[in-house]
Amino acid sequence: MIIKKPIGIGLMGLGVVGSGVARVLAEKGDTLGHQVGCPLSLKRVLVRDVSKKRSIEVSSSLLTTQAREILDDPEIAIVIEVMGGERPALDLIKEAIKRGKHVVTANKEVIAKHGPSLFALARKHRVELLYEASVGAGIPLIASLRQGLLANEISSIYAIINGTTNYILTQMANHGMDFSLALHQAQKLGYAEADPTADVEGIDAAYKLAILATLAFHKEILPSDVHHEGITRITARDFRYAQELGYAIKLLAIAKREIDSLQVRVHPALVPQDLLLAKVEGVFNAVQVEGDLIGRLLLYGQGAGSLPTTSAVIADAIDLAYRIHRNIPNPPPSLLAEGWSIKPISQIQTRYYLRMAVTDRPGVLAQIAKTLGDHLISIASVIQKEVDEDDQTAEIVIMTHQANEAAMQEALREAARLPVVHEVGNFIRVEG
Amino acid sequence: MIIKKPIGIGLMGLGVVGSGVARVLAEKGDTLGHQVGCPLSLKRVLVRDVSKKRSIEVSSSLLTTQAREILDDPEIAIVIEVMGGERPALDLIKEAIKRGKHVVTANKEVIAKHGPSLFALARKHRVELLYEASVGAGIPLIASLRQGLLANEISSIYAIINGTTNYILTQMANHGMDFSLALHQAQKLGYAEADPTADVEGIDAAYKLAILATLAFHKEILPSDVHHEGITRITARDFRYAQELGYAIKLLAIAKREIDSLQVRVHPALVPQDLLLAKVEGVFNAVQVEGDLIGRLLLYGQGAGSLPTTSAVIADAIDLAYRIHRNIPNPPPSLLAEGWSIKPISQIQTRYYLRMAVTDRPGVLAQIAKTLGDHLISIASVIQKEVDEDDQTAEIVIMTHQANEAAMQEALREAARLPVVHEVGNFIRVEG
Repeated sequence: MIIKKPIGIGLMGLGVVGSGVARVLAEKGDTLGHQVGCPLSLKRVLVRDVSKKRSIEVSSSLLTTQAREILDDPEIAIVIEVMGGERPALDLIKEAIKRGKHVVTANKEVIAKHGPSLFALARKHRVELLYEASVGAGIPLIASLRQGLLANEISSIYAIINGTTNYILTQMANHGMDFSLALHQAQKLGYAEADPTADVEGIDAAYKLAILATLAFHKEILPSDVHHEGITRITARDFRYAQELGYAIKLLAIAKREIDSLQVRVHPALVPQDLLLAKVEGVFNAVQVEGDLIGRLLLYGQGAGSLPTTSAVIADAIDLAYRIHRNIPNPPPSLLAEGWSIKPISQIQTRYYLRMAVTDRPGVLAQIAKTLGDHLISIASVIQKEVDEDDQTAEIVIMTHQANEAAMQEALREAARLPVVHEVGNFIRVEG
Repeated sequence: MIIKKPIGIGLMGLGVVGSGVARVLAEKGDTLGHQVGCPLSLKRVLVRDVSKKRSIEVSSSLLTTQAREILDDPEIAIVIEVMGGERPALDLIKEAIKRGKHVVTANKEVIAKHGPSLFALARKHRVELLYEASVGAGIPLIASLRQGLLANEISSIYAIINGTTNYILTQMANHGMDFSLALHQAQKLGYAEADPTADVEGIDAAYKLAILATLAFHKEILPSDVHHEGITRITARDFRYAQELGYAIKLLAIAKREIDSLQVRVHPALVPQDLLLAKVEGVFNAVQVEGDLIGRLLLYGQGAGSLPTTSAVIADAIDLAYRIHRNIPNPPPSLLAEGWSIKPISQIQTRYYLRMAVTDRPGVLAQIAKTLGDHLISIASVIQKEVDEDDQTAEIVIMTHQANEAAMQEALREAARLPVVHEVGNFIRVEG
């Protein structure tokens, strides 16, 4: 047997994901090496604190707090970045690329914000930057968009790509919990961070959507292009009405191609209960892609966590190691499409769910319907419930037909000024 | 701009799939050529009858009834076989490989029965044989098993991979139809063939499962290794009981890894309604894969049809064309695992749904329970319905705990001999 020179790997980060990567490289190294044709060797691991107690056994001689021990090591051909966050990860990825190292990252923020410039830098230095783990962990989303669906013109993506919010919404739906209790529970279980802003406000989902939409539409879409709204305004009451109407409530990440524009938006949405997307529960993720050839495709799985993320990171590393070993040139850059603009949220057309507290007397619905009608919004159905007899206050829930967002916002402002409307409780877009 | 020499494609078959492939190559040739780095050119199309009227416009100068016009053409580097059926497709694929042509096929029967020898032949002639379209059409199953899930040890596959039977079962479930009416309707809509045997008896699903299991378990699994049963014995009545018990009935293709054996089987099964698999309706396919890292992954989409199949065929062709253009060597053969045996169906353990017509009098259930108990089968729940008061016949439905298949078969034979048992109506395995 010929002993081949191993391909050196430098790991940056030894947190939840990094520990998984280190463990799998140790436990499955031999099998993986066979796939590549030569051994893989974990040479160095960048950590913040060498003395910290860790649950996995990584030889302490591999640990370092100095990035240069990875960057300067000529035997390290692949850098795996799983530190998370924008800095210092961005700078370290750039530095690794400049030194001719291939990079695998799970970092959605860095890829979403800086992908285009990093891919250009990688081309210049003749290395590759792979990022399957950055969206949906081990669900093969990036590979499918880049390769399997290559012949398709993608018309839309509807995705549940934030496990934290999907867990919270599932708890609210199944147990009638309110938002703050469900969030608290998610935090206790480690599904939500102490500062949950990035998850519950849709920022995390916007990063991931920017990455998917860039691939699907061959256009550079930045997180700042993505309109995002969070789930904090959804109440237990909204779930009750939605269920009565035959819908689930999900935080949807939506990317849609129209004639000469793209929609990219993240917000809570009513989703018909018979769609598979409506049945995605707990921390699971699902991405529904529509293409002209394939029709409707849905990929579902764990969108976060140590081992699911490791699954994608290792697949990317194997892919790179194989190409290094066999001297295979890097693929050419994707063709970027010209002439698409991002449609502002004010210009989208969709259906709406509206919930209002109103005076309980005849003619109130007519006034609201007129206000909506003045803005060319027509009502598809209404539920009216008496909420408080003493107060003579009723709650009405209106489902509209397709309407323009700007018109809807203006109509809601006007409705809120009607003396019979006590409060516009919520409005939620209806999708799918 | 440098004009590069096009890569020639020979198409074998111009039926449902072939027409889609020809159309997409014509309509999207430029975009696809950019992905490759040089143009793709459809050089020749093998058909049975040149004069046949066709719905798509393929220049009649491309049509031929002579395979050698493709096989002998040195400018054809890629052969796309979409004729279907074992012969003559197998011989043509072999011939193409021997002449140094890469092959893309959508042919599940050929790959399931002859994959291993064809891959060996391809290696010998330094060409590749790709077959993404052979299972689940455009759903990226093969690519995900080969690449995205590479780092995983796959423990099981549960799949709905025959659209015809899933359509029939969905009609039976949703409209209380019996099998023959649902089949007739499927035939009218073109979802089932005039001779539906391969679909309704689970043969088609067994081919596809053999292909998936071979990839998942790195072991050559042939269709003859797959135990298969069809859906013809499922009645409208079974659907009613299943629904009452909280289950759907699906034709499942199951591949499971155990300590030193594999299970590969296709048969109808009761599937809990809260599993996503239970919600796959109509002609759609879904494949649920469990791996040690990724956990549970589900890929869902159209598993047949002209354009979904074309999506996969073109993706494979682009992959090959790209490698030809850039002179990239073919990947090494997968490592095949040793020492696994296929577990006979008689040795599996699962739960069972049993339906029997019995005499309606006290003590009957005790007799049946004793017969089952004698074979170490314990009852989890029972539904008893009076069916015919005049006759004093009742129907009972028994759900068992885990039991051994051979014991179950023996117990059912004994039960059928009990004077109080008029008929063992059905038994269906319970999975998931």
